[in-house]
Order: sequence, then structure tokens, then C-alpha cells
Amino acid sequence: MDDPSFPLDAKLRASKILQSCGGQSLGSYSSSQGVSCIRENVAQYIMQRDGGIPADPDNIYLTTGASDGIASILKILVSGEEKSRTGIMIPIPQYPLYSAAISELDAIQVNYYLDEENCWALDVNELRRALYQARDYCNPKVLCIINPGNPTGQVQSRHCIEEVIHFAWEEGLFLLADEVYQDNVYSDNCKFHSFKKVLYEMGPEYFTNVELASFHSTSKGYMGECGYRGGYMEVVNLHRDIAAQLVKMLSVRLCPPVSGQAAMDVVVNPPKPEEESYNRFIREKEAVLSNLAYKAKLTEEIFNQIPGIKCNPLQGAMYAFPRIFIPDKAIQRAKELRMAPDMFYCMQLLEETGICVVPGSGFGQKEGTYHFRMTILPAVEKLKTLLQKVKEFHIKFLDEYS
Amino acid sequence: MDDPSFPLDAKLRASKILQSCGGQSLGSYSSSQGVSCIRENVAQYIMQRDGGIPADPDNIYLTTGASDGIASILKILVSGEEKSRTGIMIPIPQYPLYSAAISELDAIQVNYYLDEENCWALDVNELRRALYQARDYCNPKVLCIINPGNPTGQVQSRHCIEEVIHFAWEEGLFLLADEVYQDNVYSDNCKFHSFKKVLYEMGPEYFTNVELASFHSTSKGYMGECGYRGGYMEVVNLHRDIAAQLVKMLSVRLCPPVSGQAAMDVVVNPPKPEEESYNRFIREKEAVLSNLAYKAKLTEEIFNQIPGIKCNPLQGAMYAFPRIFIPDKAIQRAKELRMAPDMFYCMQLLEETGICVVPGSGFGQKEGTYHFRMTILPAVEKLKTLLQKVKEFHIKFLDEYS
Repeated sequence: MDDPSFPLDAKLRASKILQSCGGQSLGSYSSSQGVSCIRENVAQYIMQRDGGIPADPDNIYLTTGASDGIASILKILVSGEEKSRTGIMIPIPQYPLYSAAISELDAIQVNYYLDEENCWALDVNELRRALYQARDYCNPKVLCIINPGNPTGQVQSRHCIEEVIHFAWEEGLFLLADEVYQDNVYSDNCKFHSFKKVLYEMGPEYFTNVELASFHSTSKGYMGECGYRGGYMEVVNLHRDIAAQLVKMLSVRLCPPVSGQAAMDVVVNPPKPEEESYNRFIREKEAVLSNLAYKAKLTEEIFNQIPGIKCNPLQGAMYAFPRIFIPDKAIQRAKELRMAPDMFYCMQLLEETGICVVPGSGFGQKEGTYHFRMTILPAVEKLKTLLQKVKEFHIKFLDEYS
Repeated sequence: MDDPSFPLDAKLRASKILQSCGGQSLGSYSSSQGVSCIRENVAQYIMQRDGGIPADPDNIYLTTGASDGIASILKILVSGEEKSRTGIMIPIPQYPLYSAAISELDAIQVNYYLDEENCWALDVNELRRALYQARDYCNPKVLCIINPGNPTGQVQSRHCIEEVIHFAWEEGLFLLADEVYQDNVYSDNCKFHSFKKVLYEMGPEYFTNVELASFHSTSKGYMGECGYRGGYMEVVNLHRDIAAQLVKMLSVRLCPPVSGQAAMDVVVNPPKPEEESYNRFIREKEAVLSNLAYKAKLTEEIFNQIPGIKCNPLQGAMYAFPRIFIPDKAIQRAKELRMAPDMFYCMQLLEETGICVVPGSGFGQKEGTYHFRMTILPAVEKLKTLLQKVKEFHIKFLDEYS
């Protein structure tokens, strides 16, 4: 405690976490649900974030990153005799964790399409279409939402969230809200609304009935501490017997990494105004977020200057997912090479410029449309150079294949 | 690097690990298979442990503790059309990770019994019996070995390992060697032999054919750093296409916690004689291991002084798994309470003394025999008190129910 290289409040925070750990060490197993004082801090964080709506530490599960939590909840929901008929509704484009987890569980992937023409917004009519069609061949039980979107970067409006919750209530679907980008909202006209908050504000008919699991992570936001594999989920209205099975299942893996749990604690319990670290923390946090916001805008603008590329606003998250026009001759060439056309495009880009982006076919996209996902994480100058190179490549590519 | 509170070699080691991490930070994702310099150190460690037999860093996968590695390998082996007919052979008694993972995968658990009369040794004839009987109703593909044993604490002889490997070769079984207690061997007449080493010493007919995955962890040994969730597996003779699928599957969870990877590095790359930390390291390591050896002997001796308790030598690992005699009247009482008799015994022990041990029925045991598992981790004086209390309880229990 007398090391001058750390501010006092950081040392006190570390000491408080350690006191809650077995043998006062991050090297001890914690309970399978996570260190209790950290779960309490998570509940406190959620309550503050959601304007005072209560959160119960018993509903909080610390996880090995959000991915682990999502996979665990899906596993517990895909069970019983009819498990291989269980349908899981996911957005298209989606983050491929979902399709992979569904495939591992031998469950059935039910796609609903986000509306690219409308900034990748979620349309409840499209949810309804997907659900009703899927009922012909499976039993859809879970509705997955990614907000802010990955790879699409849209931020859902409050109205849209209300519609989704009403739909889940009406149709008896378990809601899974992947909210790991909750701190990454850039557009001035967008705001993050948690599903939990909206659910409670819709009244008791909803908040006592709709089953909801929502996820957060240390890997995104302004912190990006992904190597520690920290995350949590809050699960509400899960039947007590199922919750007991969930804990039993989690306990097979003993516990999430305690260092990741500690990182999660730091995220949900940041320095307060009266504390020594506060100014530095706020300065760094705001610098990171405003820098990302600047790059989000810059990326959208530059992409939209390129003929044959169309990019929706990057309202949130960390990615651009521009639509790219691929000429028929290039599609033909890709077919000859037995490649998806956007994979061919991305491989060409990689080979000619050294820039690595992920083809849209890895995330799913409407047939006949092509995209790629690119992060906006590189430093501004590097990002500018990179976008310039993509521009030159794209123009050359169009030229070559038209 | 100029902080005087850490020895120079520790700082150099930390700096080397950080240099291999993205952004020189444990907070970055690593590759899904783990940080490459750590995988190289693991391979080096295995080579030294195994008297120079080579290990390939490409065969090393860093994992979120050994449990995660074991579950991943089982998942990749239980696949294809006929997956629900896949049999996995496990020892009884077993560490319940195995039964839980098999049940999660909807695979079939094939029990082979360890020989309690013979210090819990593995008998190849019993393996053969279990395999041949299982072939009537499933397709046994994997043979799991826990050496040193958990919960049974036996250490396999070299001869026994040779027989097991020959059996696996003959029957075309995938060998899964859980060797997380490789540093925890206490009996003077026992030595740890790795399956990998014995496999190679049996000659090319074996080492080019038998598929083997072996596991290690930061959670056991003399270090016990379980909260970091560090581990590795070495997989040999896995078909290239399957290895590619394994990496793909692991990549869904991004990467194991990088702090756990770093902890694994420290385990496989300990201080060398010429380094500043060496003396302290050796002193601590030997103190921990000789203390465990003393407690292993002590526990065996005290248990065997109690009428109605019989305890095999604790040759390795961290547990006693004594056989307990439960009188008929107590078995009757347990039945009335709808409890397994050993569960009833353990609950009584807990209520009367505050001591928590795990009933043998949680690990599996021959019908009509009863056991419990107890760790030998408490400090010597505490352990003595604890054993004395178990003794008094047991005598009273026998008295009450006979």
C-alpha cells in the first residue's frame, strides 16, 4: 500500500477486490458465479446506468468474456427431448459467435434481416416474418439482439426496443441482448438504451414475464481489455430450477478467470470525482471515445466518396460494414476460383495492399449484396492512409473487372 | 524495469512475455492457440521433462485451465453422424468433469473400474472388459486416464502405462491423459511418467499412430494458481484437418485468458540456477511439495487407525479417498431420507463438525462401497485437528447406527 507509483484509490480498490478473494489472491478459485463483491458492484453499476431500476447480484454471473456467457445461456436453453428442433433467431449480418454456437449445439439458426436501407435498423415486421416462417420447421425459443450492432454498428432506438420486447412477450421468446458495445455510441442523435431498463419501464406485465439475459464485457468500450477475458451477464425471470442447472453447468469449468473478474470490477466501479485517479480516468476515457467517434465519422465519409461503396453511418460499436459493388466479371472470376465474391475481393485487397478486412459472407448478408467489415481501431493517421489505399484499390478493382 | 521489489530475472521474464503480446499488454487478444513464445516454452518444458523427446509448439494449445482443454478435445471427438453413439471410457472413481462433459455432449459414458484392493491401480484386463461390453451398445472412441489419479491419488507405473498405450494402439482408441498432478507425487516408490514419453520410447509403430492429448494446468502442482485459469494441452497424431477444425472451434471463444497463459509460462519456464530468484523458488517449491508429502502420509496413517475406515496410500495428487464402512442402520436411515448413504454420512459430518468432504457417489464407486474425498491442503496443525474430528465423528456414527 505504500508504493507511490499508484494512486491511493486504485490501491484501495485492488485491496478490496483481493479481500473478497480466497487467500486474498487472484490465484484462488472463486465461486462459479463469480466473486460476490464484484457481482454486487456489477448490480450497482446496472442500477446507476438504468436510472435506479434495481439489479439483483444473484442474477449476475461473471463470465470468461461475453462469448462464454452467450454460449452458456444458449446451451442451457437448447436442451430437453426436442433440443435439435430449437430455433434461435439471430440478426443477419451477425457476429459469427452466434452461428458457431448454434451449430455446435445442433440447434436451428433462424435469420432475421436488418434493414440496410434504413441504417441497419431492426424491423419488427421482419422479426415476425422470420418467426412465423420458422415455426413451419422448428420451435423458435430465443431471440438474439446485438445492440449496438456488430458488424453493422447501428444503435437501436428506444421505440424499436419497446417493439422488440413486446414481440418477445407476445410470442414467448427468451430475449438475449448482446450489449457489449454499450459505451461505444458515436452519433449525436443516438443513445444507448439497455433492454433491462426498457423492459422495466414497460411495466410489471413485461418485467415479471419476459426472460432476458444481457451481456457486457471488458473487451470493448473505452477499455478494450480483451486479453483478460472478463464479462458478465444479468439474467432476469429465469426459472429458479433452470438457474440452478445453469450454475451447475458453469461449475464444471470451476470459475471464470479471477483476473478477468477484477478487470470487470474496474469497469463497473470506475474512479469517483473525489478520488485521485478521477481526472486522469475521465481524460483518458473521453479521449478514447471522442477519438473513436471522430474515426467513425471519418470512415463513413471517406467510404461514401468512393464510387461503388456505400456505407451507413457508424452509429456505434467499432466497425464499418460498407456495401461494395462487385462487377459481374469479378463475380465470374471468383466463381472460377470457387470463392465467395466478397472473399475474392478481400483476398485481392490483402494481397495488393496488405490490408486485412473480413468478407461480409462471414457475417451473412442479403443474397446478391457484398460487404466487408473493417475496424476503426487504427490510429487516425494510419486509418487515413488505410482508407486512401482501400479507395485506390477499389477504383482499380472496378476498372480491372468492368 | 528499475523497481527494486522484484528480482531482475522475474522482470526480464515478464518483459519477454509482454513483448510477445499484442501492444505489449496482457489486455490484448492472443492467437486462439495461445501466445507463440509461451507455446515454445511449453514445448521446451515437455522436451526437458521427457528426457529430450521432441515436442512441437504447433501441437501445443494453451487453454482456460485443463478443464477447458479436456472439454474441447472431447467435443471435437464426439462429432459426425454417429456422435450420440460415441463412447468415452473413463475411470471410476473419476473427476466429475468427465461425466459432466460426456453428458453435455450426449455421448456415452463407458466406465472402467480402478482396483481399490491394489492401491487403485488401473488393470488392462478391466479396460478390455469395459471396452468389449461397451461395443454392444456404442462406439467407444476415447480412453481417458487420470494420472496421478483424482480422486484416488494413485500414480501409474511405467509398465501399466505401456500396457495402456498398447491397448489403445490395438483397439484404435484416442488417448486422453489428464496429467495435471504431474508434480504431485509423494510415495518414494512412485515416479511420474508422462504418456508422451512412454509412447515415444515404445517406438515408431506407436508414436506415429497412437493419437494422444495430454493436459497440464497452473492450478495444481506446487503453484496452485487456479484463479488464473491457465493450462495447456499437447496433441500428437491428430489429423491435420481435425486440428484445423479444433483451432476453428477454439477461435469462437477468441483466446484463453492471457494472464493465465503468462502464469503457464512461469510454470514451464521456472528460474534457472544462475538466476537471482532461483534459491527462493527452489526453497518454496520444495517446502510446498515436502509439506504435501508429509500430509499425504499423515492422512493415510490417521485414517487407517480409525475402525471402519480404510485408506489406500496417497501416492500423488491432493486428495484422500478413504473407503468408509457405513452400518446397515445408517443405510436404512439414508434411504428414508432419499439420500445416497455416503451423502448422508457427509451431511452428518458437516452438520456435526463443520467439515465439508465430498461423497464418493459424486465420483462413482463400486456398488455397495462408500467413500469420501478430502483434500490434504489445510495446514498441518489444522489437518491434524480435522482428522481427529473425523475420527471422533466416525466412531460416534458407528456407535449410533450399529
